[in-house]
Amino acid sequence: MNPTAAILLIGDEILSGRTQDTNGNHLAKRLAEIGIDLREIRVVPDEHARIVEAVNTLRGVYANVFTSGGIGPTHDDITADAIAAAFGVGIDVREDARSILATHYTNPGDLNDMRLRMARIPDGATLIDNPVSKAPGFSLGNVHVMAGVPAVFTAMVESLLPGLTGGTPMRSVSVRVEQPESQVAAPLADLAKAFPKVSIGSYPFVQNGVFGTNLVARSTDEALLKQVESRLLTMR
Amino acid sequence: MNPTAAILLIGDEILSGRTQDTNGNHLAKRLAEIGIDLREIRVVPDEHARIVEAVNTLRGVYANVFTSGGIGPTHDDITADAIAAAFGVGIDVREDARSILATHYTNPGDLNDMRLRMARIPDGATLIDNPVSKAPGFSLGNVHVMAGVPAVFTAMVESLLPGLTGGTPMRSVSVRVEQPESQVAAPLADLAKAFPKVSIGSYPFVQNGVFGTNLVARSTDEALLKQVESRLLTMR
Repeated sequence: MNPTAAILLIGDEILSGRTQDTNGNHLAKRLAEIGIDLREIRVVPDEHARIVEAVNTLRGVYANVFTSGGIGPTHDDITADAIAAAFGVGIDVREDARSILATHYTNPGDLNDMRLRMARIPDGATLIDNPVSKAPGFSLGNVHVMAGVPAVFTAMVESLLPGLTGGTPMRSVSVRVEQPESQVAAPLADLAKAFPKVSIGSYPFVQNGVFGTNLVARSTDEALLKQVESRLLTMR
Repeated sequence: MNPTAAILLIGDEILSGRTQDTNGNHLAKRLAEIGIDLREIRVVPDEHARIVEAVNTLRGVYANVFTSGGIGPTHDDITADAIAAAFGVGIDVREDARSILATHYTNPGDLNDMRLRMARIPDGATLIDNPVSKAPGFSLGNVHVMAGVPAVFTAMVESLLPGLTGGTPMRSVSVRVEQPESQVAAPLADLAKAFPKVSIGSYPFVQNGVFGTNLVARSTDEALLKQVESRLLTMR
């Protein structure tokens, strides 16, 4: 069994529709590649109680929880404090995080109080390197806290993943058929029954007036996947 | 207070990273326009128990729950049955839904067993019109069940929304400043304190090597929003 994971996206801007999230999709792909089984994504607003509740629920259920958003310098960046509260630990400006910021903000006065907020790290957390804009993320227990800005989030993901325990990568094959989904539904159901260890899905599309379906099979077992692929190819 | 809502996205293809969801963002924008307050989004896999649990949790907390995905003709389309189970009601092929499909699939044999799955409607539900591909969605209590294919989802949303109780539309103003987020953090915090009924967020960006920030204020109160906007403009 592969380790499990959930993603928690924190941000009013996603719930208001202003921002189309892409961090969830990016991390979902990277987790599949290293054999971590993403089982849930949640989006909650920038509210202390909501973040605390979601973190505590998810970290009890999944081996890994990845958060995105709310660790910048402004008043609405409340994720670090909420994580500390969820774990019941203290939080303060920490010297290792402060010195990372100090090498970045070198003019006197640049490392102002608001920027120092980004050096507030819960007790017991380890830092996640941020090669883009320096202010670090952190891991506390099984919760990995990263920035919401996509360029920073993706960089932090690459800093973090090598240190995590993965599993067998999830492989997938995709076969495109120019038939409506309901035409392939019956043979696909038979195939799914014959190969219970392979997850088989169908995704209809319309292109230039043609109704077609992408047939997708996913499994950690490459030999089984090959067998299913050859069966899917006969449906074209 | 505006009515609240959650969105439940059902689909392995989102959690595997194969599909970048856009339905959540589309509906989030539409809900803001009609004054329904989106408070949470969840993504769960195509698994009966997970769908039942999420539906029952969310429908107890929010005034409206909107689901996307899993109501097609194939073996992995299990949402309708899961909704019936969540409400503890029966489900079967229903005559009104069957007759909608029959007008679409007019050749003998076209309305096969797999396609008839799309006419399985939980007892007591009302249908949601699907002008794109006919197979209807449905509302049961405060849960509104729609397709995952974006063209169908967006059409169903337009069928559904006029019948829902909205509130005061959420308005927003956005001001772009060419300063890094940490430079505007302090005045922004003061502004947020002075206007507690306006939600004020900041979203950093990097463009052509320039660090900038989008300042966004959101409120249902247009007069307050105007005041905040004029203050935001002075930060440019």
